[in-house]
Amino acid sequence: MCRWLAYTGSPVLLTEVLYTPVHSLIDQSLHSRLGAETTNGDGFGVGWYDATPVPGVFRSIEPAWNEPNLRELAGHISSRLFFAHVRAAIGSAVQQTNCHPFRYGRWLFMHNGFVDGFAAIKRDLVLTVDESLFPEIKGQADTEVLFYLALTFGLADDPPDAVARAIGFVEARGRARGVEFPFQGTIATTDGESVWAFRYSSEGNSRSLFFTRDIPVLRQQYPERELLREVSDDARLVVSEPIGDLPGAWVEMPEASYGVFGKGGERLLSFAPKPPPEAPR
Amino acid sequence: MCRWLAYTGSPVLLTEVLYTPVHSLIDQSLHSRLGAETTNGDGFGVGWYDATPVPGVFRSIEPAWNEPNLRELAGHISSRLFFAHVRAAIGSAVQQTNCHPFRYGRWLFMHNGFVDGFAAIKRDLVLTVDESLFPEIKGQADTEVLFYLALTFGLADDPPDAVARAIGFVEARGRARGVEFPFQGTIATTDGESVWAFRYSSEGNSRSLFFTRDIPVLRQQYPERELLREVSDDARLVVSEPIGDLPGAWVEMPEASYGVFGKGGERLLSFAPKPPPEAPR
Amino acid sequence: MCRWLAYTGSPVLLTEVLYTPVHSLIDQSLHSRLGAETTNGDGFGVGWYDATPVPGVFRSIEPAWNEPNLRELAGHISSRLFFAHVRAAIGSAVQQTNCHPFRYGRWLFMHNGFVDGFAAIKRDLVLTVDESLFPEIKGQADTEVLFYLALTFGLADDPPDAVARAIGFVEARGRARGVEFPFQGTIATTDGESVWAFRYSSEGNSRSLFFTRDIPVLRQQYPERELLREVSDDARLVVSEPIGDLPGAWVEMPEASYGVFGKGGERLLSFAPKPPPEAPR
Amino acid sequence: MCRWLAYTGSPVLLTEVLYTPVHSLIDQSLHSRLGAETTNGDGFGVGWYDATPVPGVFRSIEPAWNEPNLRELAGHISSRLFFAHVRAAIGSAVQQTNCHPFRYGRWLFMHNGFVDGFAAIKRDLVLTVDESLFPEIKGQADTEVLFYLALTFGLADDPPDAVARAIGFVEARGRARGVEFPFQGTIATTDGESVWAFRYSSEGNSRSLFFTRDIPVLRQQYPERELLREVSDDARLVVSEPIGDLPGAWVEMPEASYGVFGKGGERLLSFAPKPPPEAPR
Repeated sequence: MCRWLAYTGSPVLLTEVLYTPVHSLIDQSLHSRLGAETTNGDGFGVGWYDATPVPGVFRSIEPAWNEPNLRELAGHISSRLFFAHVRAAIGSAVQQTNCHPFRYGRWLFMHNGFVDGFAAIKRDLVLTVDESLFPEIKGQADTEVLFYLALTFGLADDPPDAVARAIGFVEARGRARGVEFPFQGTIATTDGESVWAFRYSSEGNSRSLFFTRDIPVLRQQYPERELLREVSDDARLVVSEPIGDLPGAWVEMPEASYGVFGKGGERLLSFAPKPPPEAPR
Repeated sequence: MCRWLAYTGSPVLLTEVLYTPVHSLIDQSLHSRLGAETTNGDGFGVGWYDATPVPGVFRSIEPAWNEPNLRELAGHISSRLFFAHVRAAIGSAVQQTNCHPFRYGRWLFMHNGFVDGFAAIKRDLVLTVDESLFPEIKGQADTEVLFYLALTFGLADDPPDAVARAIGFVEARGRARGVEFPFQGTIATTDGESVWAFRYSSEGNSRSLFFTRDIPVLRQQYPERELLREVSDDARLVVSEPIGDLPGAWVEMPEASYGVFGKGGERLLSFAPKPPPEAPR
Repeated sequence: MCRWLAYTGSPVLLTEVLYTPVHSLIDQSLHSRLGAETTNGDGFGVGWYDATPVPGVFRSIEPAWNEPNLRELAGHISSRLFFAHVRAAIGSAVQQTNCHPFRYGRWLFMHNGFVDGFAAIKRDLVLTVDESLFPEIKGQADTEVLFYLALTFGLADDPPDAVARAIGFVEARGRARGVEFPFQGTIATTDGESVWAFRYSSEGNSRSLFFTRDIPVLRQQYPERELLREVSDDARLVVSEPIGDLPGAWVEMPEASYGVFGKGGERLLSFAPKPPPEAPR
Repeated sequence: MCRWLAYTGSPVLLTEVLYTPVHSLIDQSLHSRLGAETTNGDGFGVGWYDATPVPGVFRSIEPAWNEPNLRELAGHISSRLFFAHVRAAIGSAVQQTNCHPFRYGRWLFMHNGFVDGFAAIKRDLVLTVDESLFPEIKGQADTEVLFYLALTFGLADDPPDAVARAIGFVEARGRARGVEFPFQGTIATTDGESVWAFRYSSEGNSRSLFFTRDIPVLRQQYPERELLREVSDDARLVVSEPIGDLPGAWVEMPEASYGVFGKGGERLLSFAPKPPPEAPR
């Protein structure tokens, strides 16, 4: 449905990650290999952290492959942690407020996949969003509602728990409406320090997700690659679909798992949604 | 905040109403005289009826004054009943799904004004929208929610009653949250046969609204005007702000009133919101 | 590079041709089968004739597959002759003034293909455009310049001759700059009565082009198809790539040929560019 | 027609100059006081210098006043030298390639005003542009052609001479076509080190232009202003129309003059166009 990328490590110019590699994310907007859709031309977004407390977000409804402003910005913005997303819309309008990543305070959130039967359960979901957060929902995308559900369930305190509760809630509501497999996809979220990346689907057959091996290992394997020499040892890319031409560089995230990357050490753990404590109304 | 125009009568090319007159609606997008804002450059929309059962809608986020597609379409589309709207956004994003007119089935709806304190009461309002209609809300504009409230309250059966109940509900919810004057504005809605145009504000100082005098009278007054000779006797324009250069052509809609125009005869009646039967939760 | 479609016949709603058929032009914007590029997402355009002397043109930089306005207009505009084009940009910006069809007076012009080495010869070409036409060039696309060259060479009087001279001129100028195969593509042009469709490339390996067999023959073959029963006997579609699911419906235009369709009878003739009389400066 | 702003000095966040001041350039996009047009809503552009050799450029066709991406970028990009421009289109399309500032290599160029009779002399002008530069012209704006004329006449070596020759050439060609006052406006250009700002019109009644007094003087006058304390002593703003609320802060550029700001010292000199040496062909 979409393709996304998350980077954490020493600061790099966005263009070195978004444009320079073979089969880059920008190429994937036009010709994805692993995506459910080969074209991801319904807008894009970039969110990045710098010295200011709140991340910057640049989103557009144009296809990424021919967008001069994205190319300009990628050549001039450096960041130690950024998200990028190219969108294939399913169901909701092509408009900036439906483009990922979504932002709330210091948090960014993006998704590749969908909430099945979203129209039928959207009302249940938005009613569960905390009243104080409700006015912050600007668009109509399932992902944005999922983000505000996760925020309602404590994303800022315990991201894996909040995402597990949000997806558990979506599954409960969906199944109550007769949807067999309510959730599908991969999610990335960050507070600007760590990146949490999830791979899960109700049907147990989730959209692909990959992350890079340790940079020191890659440097040995590909000593001629300049980018590998430049970035810090703890740099990581997490992607829907491998970029570049380094076959040994990628580890596939297992089905029903999540990873934590960035400051404070890395972990790869299993993931299971947490159903709501009580039966749905 | 916005400027709008509704036409009903014998079919005319949209351009004869939208572009040709002095101080046309398109001019008002750049230089309004009576509007709360002089510039209405945050998108526009046109909705028109022809032989197909559902009206066509063309909406764009570009300023109307320089939009080549609108100019093209206006020169090629004839209609016996159409709405046009130029927007000055307050609070909600500049995106097509926030542009007026809004459409549901055969119905169109547009508004100049605002729901004061909308962020605070939006949740109350959307929860009141009928569950079957809820998924149809595509944007985030106060007007769209008002439209779906009116549909929930029976717009298709009794438009004045439904609009009175929708505004009454908005006022009740707003006042419960401490908003002194929750509703402001003028509204037009149509089923493709009649046009209902409302002028009302909680503070009793509503946005301007005008409609044209009887065409036979105007023809006598301005015998040289070709458009007046072309259109049918029952043609009417309803506008936020007079267009053209015919000083005697316009009647101001009184404060707290509504008019019915089009098939089935015309009426001008007083308007009062209908508060919800029970106290708010 | 692009996909296009021309229709002439009894008036039909655009949507019946643009959206309804299997593998429609709108589908081809996302998934072309025969195109040099599978995605044609860099804008689109429609030009149509009605009672007004000058055709209407609606062009947008958004991908056609998700453009709500195009869908609306196609459902409300009927025409007896129209062009539609979905674009895959190569080299020039994604902007309305680069979208096909181009219009001058009553004439429309569109193209699938390219002028090779255009940057190198563009100056030569625009200098050859008649001085009175020069200010009408609004964009930077090779096709627009080709159109104004053809107009300079008498498109309004003898379209096949003018197109042959325009392409001949492009080839002469290109070869003078060392370009082996300066022209590639298919072209359609119309004055609102007849459609001229050309298939030619300097290398003798041109982009695909098809037209429909006689409607009475198709009606016999596919008696259950409603659209075939509705349209006039002389209706024709000319397309870059077949639409619909009627395998026997299409005739491939031969290499280096052109066809004339519409009022005044049909012809299929061979095509050869006409080099300029004198050696290039 | 337009409003523009140039900053040179110690690095500042763009937002502190573009958004924070009272009556900022962004406000002027909606409500200019001194402009020939009060609304400058036909797109905008920002060009900025950082560590990379070529400046970044972000241009959009949306009105600046409601553009979320501009607001985002302005809050995250710091620069020691940047240009910003809000456009009121006259004659040429609202498209990114017509938005200022224009860029060539390290150079930026922007303009408030117009070339009178541009359609009539455009051909003469573009033919004079150096052949190697000709393919770089991407849009249809008079300013872009003026920029490439100035580059042809040696902008990179002697900016005041090149601009004087470009305007002189425009005046000669315009007068040869019967245009009384061919040039009007203010121009800013930069190589990333110095800013050259010109005020001139053929009629001797030029669009307004202002620059800031010495920062140390302003600091004494307005000791409470944080921005004044932050920026370097040599910081300068050059603007079409004063921003902020510091009445004593602005010096009006005299009629027919130019200023040089930035590295290498400042100068204020008189300006006169240089007519071409020979009579026009």
